[in-house]
Amino acid sequence: MSDLKKIGRVGVKTLVYFEVVSTFALLIGLIVAEVVQPGHGFNIDPATLDPKSVAGYVTRAKEEGFVAHIMAIIPNTFVGALANGFSQLRDPDSMLYYDLPQYWDFWQVVESLDVPFYLHPRNPLPSQARIYEGHRWLLGPAWAFAQETAVHALRLMGSGLFDKYPRLAIVLGHMGEGLPFGMWRVDHCNGWVKGRHNYPAKKPIADYFHANFHVTVSGNFCTPALLNAMLELGSDRILFSTDWPFENVDQAAEWFDVAPISAADRLKIGRTNAVKLFKLDMT
Amino acid sequence: MSDLKKIGRVGVKTLVYFEVVSTFALLIGLIVAEVVQPGHGFNIDPATLDPKSVAGYVTRAKEEGFVAHIMAIIPNTFVGALANGFSQLRDPDSMLYYDLPQYWDFWQVVESLDVPFYLHPRNPLPSQARIYEGHRWLLGPAWAFAQETAVHALRLMGSGLFDKYPRLAIVLGHMGEGLPFGMWRVDHCNGWVKGRHNYPAKKPIADYFHANFHVTVSGNFCTPALLNAMLELGSDRILFSTDWPFENVDQAAEWFDVAPISAADRLKIGRTNAVKLFKLDMT
Amino acid sequence: MSDLKKIGRVGVKTLVYFEVVSTFALLIGLIVAEVVQPGHGFNIDPATLDPKSVAGYVTRAKEEGFVAHIMAIIPNTFVGALANGFSQLRDPDSMLYYDLPQYWDFWQVVESLDVPFYLHPRNPLPSQARIYEGHRWLLGPAWAFAQETAVHALRLMGSGLFDKYPRLAIVLGHMGEGLPFGMWRVDHCNGWVKGRHNYPAKKPIADYFHANFHVTVSGNFCTPALLNAMLELGSDRILFSTDWPFENVDQAAEWFDVAPISAADRLKIGRTNAVKLFKLDMT
Amino acid sequence: MSDLKKIGRVGVKTLVYFEVVSTFALLIGLIVAEVVQPGHGFNIDPATLDPKSVAGYVTRAKEEGFVAHIMAIIPNTFVGALANGFSQLRDPDSMLYYDLPQYWDFWQVVESLDVPFYLHPRNPLPSQARIYEGHRWLLGPAWAFAQETAVHALRLMGSGLFDKYPRLAIVLGHMGEGLPFGMWRVDHCNGWVKGRHNYPAKKPIADYFHANFHVTVSGNFCTPALLNAMLELGSDRILFSTDWPFENVDQAAEWFDVAPISAADRLKIGRTNAVKLFKLDMT
Repeated sequence: MSDLKKIGRVGVKTLVYFEVVSTFALLIGLIVAEVVQPGHGFNIDPATLDPKSVAGYVTRAKEEGFVAHIMAIIPNTFVGALANGFSQLRDPDSMLYYDLPQYWDFWQVVESLDVPFYLHPRNPLPSQARIYEGHRWLLGPAWAFAQETAVHALRLMGSGLFDKYPRLAIVLGHMGEGLPFGMWRVDHCNGWVKGRHNYPAKKPIADYFHANFHVTVSGNFCTPALLNAMLELGSDRILFSTDWPFENVDQAAEWFDVAPISAADRLKIGRTNAVKLFKLDMT
Repeated sequence: MSDLKKIGRVGVKTLVYFEVVSTFALLIGLIVAEVVQPGHGFNIDPATLDPKSVAGYVTRAKEEGFVAHIMAIIPNTFVGALANGFSQLRDPDSMLYYDLPQYWDFWQVVESLDVPFYLHPRNPLPSQARIYEGHRWLLGPAWAFAQETAVHALRLMGSGLFDKYPRLAIVLGHMGEGLPFGMWRVDHCNGWVKGRHNYPAKKPIADYFHANFHVTVSGNFCTPALLNAMLELGSDRILFSTDWPFENVDQAAEWFDVAPISAADRLKIGRTNAVKLFKLDMT
Repeated sequence: MSDLKKIGRVGVKTLVYFEVVSTFALLIGLIVAEVVQPGHGFNIDPATLDPKSVAGYVTRAKEEGFVAHIMAIIPNTFVGALANGFSQLRDPDSMLYYDLPQYWDFWQVVESLDVPFYLHPRNPLPSQARIYEGHRWLLGPAWAFAQETAVHALRLMGSGLFDKYPRLAIVLGHMGEGLPFGMWRVDHCNGWVKGRHNYPAKKPIADYFHANFHVTVSGNFCTPALLNAMLELGSDRILFSTDWPFENVDQAAEWFDVAPISAADRLKIGRTNAVKLFKLDMT
Repeated sequence: MSDLKKIGRVGVKTLVYFEVVSTFALLIGLIVAEVVQPGHGFNIDPATLDPKSVAGYVTRAKEEGFVAHIMAIIPNTFVGALANGFSQLRDPDSMLYYDLPQYWDFWQVVESLDVPFYLHPRNPLPSQARIYEGHRWLLGPAWAFAQETAVHALRLMGSGLFDKYPRLAIVLGHMGEGLPFGMWRVDHCNGWVKGRHNYPAKKPIADYFHANFHVTVSGNFCTPALLNAMLELGSDRILFSTDWPFENVDQAAEWFDVAPISAADRLKIGRTNAVKLFKLDMT
């Protein structure tokens, strides 16, 4: 194939991918920025939040038409949606993970809206980051993001949240933040010790991972990790994503276009899984 | 195959595996218990340590004969070798990772002895474990061990230690504590940002993982994770191990005996890699 | 888990699997035995066949109820359905593959019935089996079956049949008879030679494999081959099957129960793919 | 990376690969062209062959220096070495596979020379190719080569040849001609039938594949097939090769450079396995 033709092909695919991913971030942004207000949310009081207001945003998004809506919303929500993780309330050194009781009303709304929730990484608080002292290069995407987000996700799984709201769909980026590799050990460690785990949830932890989670390949364009995710979670729960602006779109697309997976899985992961999960109207 | 015959087969293999793994733990124990004294080492002063004394132990081990030596040493070193991770010095809330300058003399001895060093997990300090609050089931092998040990290993890689002592061989348990899955992202995150990493080491982090590390399958009898480790690190650097007494030996052996790997890799991982790495005399 | 409990679990699963697989063979048997009459079909004349009569059988199967119907039909069709491959017409040394023009009316009926067609192996004719001389152990399932069936399938793909009847669904046993491994080379060999292939079909051969074929794991309980099939064809087109009575059901189930695939894929391959493909009423 | 730089990198690697592969073909060519004379060998009489003469060639190759030797030999042996498969003797319709008794003296020499033997494909005789009638595109590398060569290799394995000459090393191209995928079924088909196989060899067939065979990736630049080969045979027995002039060198190198395998395996498969197997002096 000529280089020109190839670039054209990548370009077209990238557009499709990008559209899907943007829509994706957009819908999530609507919920997260309004309800949780990550980033600038140091002093919110959950008591003042009206989760029902989110429904208005989503409805409006469908009425206004896609492009106009993006233009209107991106400035103040797109970045917000990508600044997630635990919240701080009143005390900057507080860490409020979303398995805590005060967030279950929020989750009820998310389930009733039937939209996925993207749990995006953030760094640990300075007081909790001593393990990275002298090695700040391990903060952020290199390592700390995955630890923060994986544990946050495990807390949700162990809390019983998905027993109460079984239709919740959580999306994790970066090929699942290490969970595909570590999930077996979560449930099987100390295999011959009886009653070793003590958490409110009713089932093995992996059951919730398999039933309530989706992962994107964002920023983790690594085929062995992709294969691990496919063998742990299955290709129906993996979504192409680029992690733009943190990673470049063409690098993601070039990797994905030749990743050694079936044409059926390339279509699912590259497009149809996202169309289904986000109920996108792609016509 | 009759069940009886099968049990016999597993039994024999298990003995071989166990012998290798015990020897393995033993040699490591000699170094760690003497020099670092993990577990009961709250008040040691590195200045008083004589790393050279370790050489005597190892020499003695070879002279005394294998069984007698095990009997003599296991009581006070076997457990010590398995209580590793960072050290505390004077202050119980101190965290001394072995990439710090005061340990480089120790590493010089380890390299000169030409024996591998097993970096075994421990839990984070209580003051650093707030992410697990309300979810103590995530401490230990379920999750916290891997995070502690992976970051410790990454600190070693980024510190330049392996530039100075390039023949050091570090062993990690539990299929590499998540590193095979996450290593690509360590080096590639923010792929289009120039000069994003700032650590003393000279090469990409994965280069040290590939050149100075070995992983055991202990406590992580998960085939997708094994495949991930094989595709990241290669089968020459993977060792069978059981994590006994935390995991049962027969569960490990039953999984490994039918793991979908080549006969050549089963022999390497199950036996010859350890024989080479630990210079075991198996005749 | 106690052995008794395990046996129970395998037993239940096996029944489900077996039911699916039997139904599967049954529906195919109806078509094949009636229209193609493999095995005892040395002297049929395609001109006398009335493909439309097949529809009656299938309708009857739905009216009579499942069990009664099985009892009535198995004796003369179940075995017939499993004796497939090319046909001989008049001359015992003739080899009529189903891509030949005289079979396209048959395929039209199969497509209009919207039922899958199982292409089961047979041995080559004695006159064509000289490569196995002195090595009769390579005939049948050890090797010759796969070669016969894979080439038969490739002939269908190259003939243009699926351009004309794009909704045809062909099922191959034994993890796809080697095609998942060899398919890349079929399309890519002599990659830099222009116009190297010369067949009536309009698209690359693999496109038809991906769109019109399903494979079962029957008699090929080999995890590396399963992974290869998943990466070539995708898990939506793989079906559990045992190859009973050639292979034992418990061996198949024991392998499949612990194969290192996701729970989602285990359910698909073990059950729902067959339910969809054969439109089984499993309520 | 700039395109120019990338081309440079590919170029250098390609040279290394090519050197290895050419040397490889050369040494094999010396044996095959002299002793077996494939291609133009319609009327040779094995009785007149002097296998000992091969040793002279190999010795000379080492004395003359590499480049001069290539120049001197390629014209009449390089192509010969690539025209392998069964031989015809006197009768153009004869098929003499190298497991037949008249070739065992030849194998004795090969073993005593301690050099590998490359079993290269050829097409079936016209009289045996009726399965491809009307589908000549399936002849050659698309499919027929693999069937011919795989069965030839299986005949060697089943014949007992490797019981008598256990140090023989056979090299197969094209990722093993389908054998990695099919080998399990060769030994396990009809798993519950006693005494189903009847061949002179003493062990399961796969034992010989694992002990006496090496495969190259030539012309099969397909990652799922590579993974299958790694899980069946192990990375120590896989060699990079391009199949030039049938496939282009840059396509092979571009695929291999980013194949999702460990750096250790890339070095082995790309270089050191060949250096060891062919005892190349690469200094």
